Amino acid sequence: MLITVEGLDGAGKTTLISGLARSLGAVVLREPGGVELSERIRALVADPSLSVDPRAEALLYAAARAQLVAEKLRPLLDEGATVLLDRFVDSSLAYQGGGRGLGVEEIRALNLFGTGGLRPDRTLLLRIEPSQGLARIAGREADRLEQAGGEFFARVAQTYDELAAADPDRFIVLDAAQPPATVLESALKALS
Amino acid sequence: MLITVEGLDGAGKTTLISGLARSLGAVVLREPGGVELSERIRALVADPSLSVDPRAEALLYAAARAQLVAEKLRPLLDEGATVLLDRFVDSSLAYQGGGRGLGVEEIRALNLFGTGGLRPDRTLLLRIEPSQGLARIAGREADRLEQAGGEFFARVAQTYDELAAADPDRFIVLDAAQPPATVLESALKALS
Ligand SMILES: Nc1ncnc2c1ncn2[C@@H]1O[C@H](COP(=O)(O)OP(=O)(O)O)[C@@H](O)[C@H]1O
Ligand SMILES: Nc1ncnc2c1ncn2[C@@H]1O[C@H](COP(=O)(O)OP(=O)(O)O)[C@@H](O)[C@H]1O
Ligand SMILES: [Mg+2]
Ligand SMILES: [Mg+2]
Repeated sequence: MLITVEGLDGAGKTTLISGLARSLGAVVLREPGGVELSERIRALVADPSLSVDPRAEALLYAAARAQLVAEKLRPLLDEGATVLLDRFVDSSLAYQGGGRGLGVEEIRALNLFGTGGLRPDRTLLLRIEPSQGLARIAGREADRLEQAGGEFFARVAQTYDELAAADPDRFIVLDAAQPPATVLESALKALS
Repeated sequence: MLITVEGLDGAGKTTLISGLARSLGAVVLREPGGVELSERIRALVADPSLSVDPRAEALLYAAARAQLVAEKLRPLLDEGATVLLDRFVDSSLAYQGGGRGLGVEEIRALNLFGTGGLRPDRTLLLRIEPSQGLARIAGREADRLEQAGGEFFARVAQTYDELAAADPDRFIVLDAAQPPATVLESALKALS
């Protein structure tokens, strides 16, 4: 069972996942990361001093994801584990496909190659106004992506909405403006 | 004018390029590398201590290439420079598509995305027996790819041959078993 959690920066993904993990007895992984190569790639894409072309960025996220799937995620799922994953393919569709304007279908093709077609069983989308999400993390040092402008995040939010609308059986859309306990309760109810 | 040089490890690409650069007044670039992000990716794919899934490897090479194209190669070509490039898309088609068995067409699609379809004007393929190439570089410390087995290199060599046969207008096939001066002379003659 693979459950992914998606949403804008500051939406509350990490907060929700720590609540869910206890209730579900799930293994928690985050993207990009989770294995050595992917953590090294994460450091590259987040480095504000590096010049990173949007296409290179999309390929790097797909590479980090491919390594996580092959080295850790697929073996865990094969063992029967429940995995909670902080971001997955939908993040690339929303951020690189929508936000960067590279096209959702082109980014989907890269990720289909990288993941061998692995699909989440359920995806929790934490829906929030971009400005509210960014305000929550205002104290956190912004990485290279978080430094992108407001229009970028509006496109990301819109793409998330479109993905959820196109795949209602997989997506569970939650109002992330609610308090953490309410969000957790709604998520548990929807998953049960 | 973009001229790429391709062939197995130890075929003599770097040697030929240093000879050609003088005669052609060309800018020399190598792959993966040439710009900061791509050099950092090169270090990842070459690191023998890292576990790198074949799909992640293919995506990392495509990412390094995308950055080189966007940041340096396309601007140089737009200025009218002649560029000699040590490996390009054909290396990924041969090594990841053929050698790793991921499929030439799938690797072509990733690289089409990454490069925006940039095509070399001419490609010099240095043709050599895998064992002869490997013997030439036996003193050099083997990186992660060079540690792959002999069947791997046989598949790479065969894929290079198939690529050259399919695109005879672009490929110039040279016998890399000849002495360096002969190889250089043949290359200059074919290019002129
Ligand atoms: N539902 C919520 N309401 C208010 N603040 C929240 C909520 N969920 C998380 N936060 C706070 O917002 C910030 C970002 O939460 P986090 O879980 O790190 O978001 P994300 O992982 O989506 O970037 C943290 O300071 C967190 O405590
Ligand atoms: N035509 C040749 N004949 C014999 N040795 C060669 C020839 N070309 C290169 N070499 C030697 O073989 C080794 C590998 O050459 P190099 O140009 O680094 O190959 P590559 O860049 O294709 O891996 C070097 O030691 C080089 O001096
Ligand atoms: Mg988080
Ligand atoms: Mg060389």
